[in-house]
Amino acid sequence: MTHHRSLLTDLYQITMAYGYWRHGMHKRDSVFHLFYRSPPFGGRYVVAAGLETALQWLEGFALSDSDLEYLQSLVGNDNQQLFSNAFVADLAKLQLTIDLDAMREGTIVYPHEPLLRVRGPLWQCQWIETALLNTVNFQSLIATKAARIRDVAGNDSVLEFGLRRAQGADGAMSASRAAYLGGCDATSNVLAGKEYGIPVRGTHAHSWVMSFDTELESFEAYADAMPNNCIFLVDTYDTLQGVKHAIEVGQRLRDKGHAMAGIRLDSGNLATLSLHARALLDQAGFHNAKIVASNDLDENAMRDMKAAGSQIAVWGIGTKLATAYDQPALGGVYKLAAMEDGTGNLVPRIKLSDTPIKTSVPGKLQVRRYYRDSQAVGDIMYSELTGAPLSPIACAPTSNREPHDLSDHNASEDLLIPVMRGGRRVASLPSLSESREFARMERLRMCPSTLQLEQASPYPFGLEERLSTLRSKMIAKAASSKTKEAN
Amino acid sequence: MTHHRSLLTDLYQITMAYGYWRHGMHKRDSVFHLFYRSPPFGGRYVVAAGLETALQWLEGFALSDSDLEYLQSLVGNDNQQLFSNAFVADLAKLQLTIDLDAMREGTIVYPHEPLLRVRGPLWQCQWIETALLNTVNFQSLIATKAARIRDVAGNDSVLEFGLRRAQGADGAMSASRAAYLGGCDATSNVLAGKEYGIPVRGTHAHSWVMSFDTELESFEAYADAMPNNCIFLVDTYDTLQGVKHAIEVGQRLRDKGHAMAGIRLDSGNLATLSLHARALLDQAGFHNAKIVASNDLDENAMRDMKAAGSQIAVWGIGTKLATAYDQPALGGVYKLAAMEDGTGNLVPRIKLSDTPIKTSVPGKLQVRRYYRDSQAVGDIMYSELTGAPLSPIACAPTSNREPHDLSDHNASEDLLIPVMRGGRRVASLPSLSESREFARMERLRMCPSTLQLEQASPYPFGLEERLSTLRSKMIAKAASSKTKEAN
Repeated sequence: MTHHRSLLTDLYQITMAYGYWRHGMHKRDSVFHLFYRSPPFGGRYVVAAGLETALQWLEGFALSDSDLEYLQSLVGNDNQQLFSNAFVADLAKLQLTIDLDAMREGTIVYPHEPLLRVRGPLWQCQWIETALLNTVNFQSLIATKAARIRDVAGNDSVLEFGLRRAQGADGAMSASRAAYLGGCDATSNVLAGKEYGIPVRGTHAHSWVMSFDTELESFEAYADAMPNNCIFLVDTYDTLQGVKHAIEVGQRLRDKGHAMAGIRLDSGNLATLSLHARALLDQAGFHNAKIVASNDLDENAMRDMKAAGSQIAVWGIGTKLATAYDQPALGGVYKLAAMEDGTGNLVPRIKLSDTPIKTSVPGKLQVRRYYRDSQAVGDIMYSELTGAPLSPIACAPTSNREPHDLSDHNASEDLLIPVMRGGRRVASLPSLSESREFARMERLRMCPSTLQLEQASPYPFGLEERLSTLRSKMIAKAASSKTKEAN
Repeated sequence: MTHHRSLLTDLYQITMAYGYWRHGMHKRDSVFHLFYRSPPFGGRYVVAAGLETALQWLEGFALSDSDLEYLQSLVGNDNQQLFSNAFVADLAKLQLTIDLDAMREGTIVYPHEPLLRVRGPLWQCQWIETALLNTVNFQSLIATKAARIRDVAGNDSVLEFGLRRAQGADGAMSASRAAYLGGCDATSNVLAGKEYGIPVRGTHAHSWVMSFDTELESFEAYADAMPNNCIFLVDTYDTLQGVKHAIEVGQRLRDKGHAMAGIRLDSGNLATLSLHARALLDQAGFHNAKIVASNDLDENAMRDMKAAGSQIAVWGIGTKLATAYDQPALGGVYKLAAMEDGTGNLVPRIKLSDTPIKTSVPGKLQVRRYYRDSQAVGDIMYSELTGAPLSPIACAPTSNREPHDLSDHNASEDLLIPVMRGGRRVASLPSLSESREFARMERLRMCPSTLQLEQASPYPFGLEERLSTLRSKMIAKAASSKTKEAN
């Protein structure tokens, strides 16, 4: 096992933990939510991902002697020790005792809805913030990208090829995991194949062709070595000539009882080339040989190629998936929403902002999703401190729009499920492939117009009525005390 | 120690290795170069980074029993084993024996110039391609971004705050490392501080303020706990009111013999707020208290704020640095450029493309940089197979532009230095902070106009004359054989 990365946090989490500890507030019961405000890629939703990875980090949490020595070595701007020895001694004994409730990986999540709800001693909740954000922000971003690609691909295969351009080794591992969860069929990343059980795919590169005197020779050599895994990369010199060479070698493979799996296009006008290649392959009787395409693809390029009638059946998506190129970060945040008062009761807390969308939702939140005949009709976010919805009315969280009436439903469920209690895992989470299947089912439960690449219909979500009222009151109260203070 | 991630490679590297092995070609001596074609962010250059990380991966390379079992478990499209047992048995004995020459971390590198040159048995060179690209592409991208930010910052401090939005844990660790190398002064990432010796910075978040009944109370509590590390975040409720509260607490700190380090702005119009905050601080005698700003910053936003006269002295840069938000991947490639022929000689190889910029440079390349009075005047890429430059003429690699004459120089040096021989490290690489200093010196050696954020002047670089002639001949020969084949 690798050494646990418990120091994977921002310094200010530790300085705050120290501050709380100095004031005897560090064990105060508190509630934080991890959520996002604006959906990525011009869409309407996010696919939750990263929970299992985050849980493993939480379960392994323990500060080592060298971690503690490092913290003791830090100094402030007067060159004096930043953290007292007594605090570091308490850290040495620190074990996580938090409760964690979370959306299942693969769940479709809307803005302001908690993907994670953390409850526990204040200093613990702060310390773990950064690692939770790092894990859940990135994997949810990539799972969402993959879901969009999957929706465009329909029944085509989608392969994730992003390792070489991904953001570091773990950027690649996390991306492979989340891309599979979101709907990809396989990865080129062998380590991700081994560690996560994701199917792996790949045949050869241009360098293979260049290692032989002619392209034909290189294809023959490849077919000879791997007759059961032949997808020939045909564009090293001249693409359609390459297709003819592939056909020539494919015929020899067929004579020996093997089947050429396909050809790969990696440059030029992929849609047009696929039409010509398909015609050549069909003419030669290779109706089952598939056309694989790669080269800077994403869901938008795929949609355009499909509109142009492309004959591509397998899409290799690299950089633009593994880095979420057009929006490489999800702006997920982690906000305090309730804290124990002097009498031991949890009381809601709010973070104001001049930007209304940035004003937080106070309480200990849960999300109830309503269904009619297995189709989601809307979500209501409620606080367990103020109570579950009395009626299915969703009040808009950030504007004065009319509330959504979700009365026309015949089922509902709460989306946050208990995952940890007292720092220990209480739920056996689904495997990665089960989560992938769950993500697929989730999309079927949503109205397709809400999942469109662009100009998707809004999905009805909002706050439970008492929560909405409480929030308005807290905003008004804070505003009046601000005015008083300024006077 | 963590288990070595030797399987961090694309499957096709292994299928090609198997193909070469089946044909007895796997040990053939070959040369690959890692380079990029187009500089990122609208600039002209890249800062090389990631070498030490890549070297550690290479030094640790070893396939474990479970790696080998995994490879044996893979099947082709006929459900038969993909790799033969004899091949896997040979992999079990595989040790890297490559030679590696590389640009020092921090070197300014121009398009087509190798950041790495790998020479060794063909199957080894292929296997390691993906991990080298993953490491060097990402770290060089981030070091380049950081260098651009550093150039705009001038003497201001730059803090990297990207962990929470970075692409996975290692995306964050690599980003912190490369950002420091490229010119940042510190990071918020405590683990990066511990592992790489980067200074760490940070004080408190909005949640600290929200944990108290009033902002003033929260600042007092913070000052009480950490009198030697006080930068107050002033925008939880009302920014300028927050500055006044910071001043109030700062005065008490001063009375006790401590100095308030500064305030942090995290929302609103940062340039304007910094002017007001500076005036308030100066009025109260806090001339040394610094104004820290954060919130979606990058080099372009910094330039605009500086133009608007902002009084920001410390820049906290998160998402847009750690993910290189405006261009989250560097398109570095790794291409075969020479291979042993039947008689044991290395002969050049070329990869053609309809896009001239994608046609590779054949040979075993080296880059010679010419200086006049310690200022770089241009680079010539030459092949050790055709010989070092006889005259300082740089022929344009991808067009018919006039060659650059670099005669007006009084010094030169070759940029690729030997790093590994026979799979063992031969050079003791500089520490991270030495590389950071080297990167700083590199920028001083370049004409400032070539480093500008936008519309930078081109830097003269090109091919040595014999290499240029050889390349043209190889292109012409390949074109004529293509024509013959098509007929």
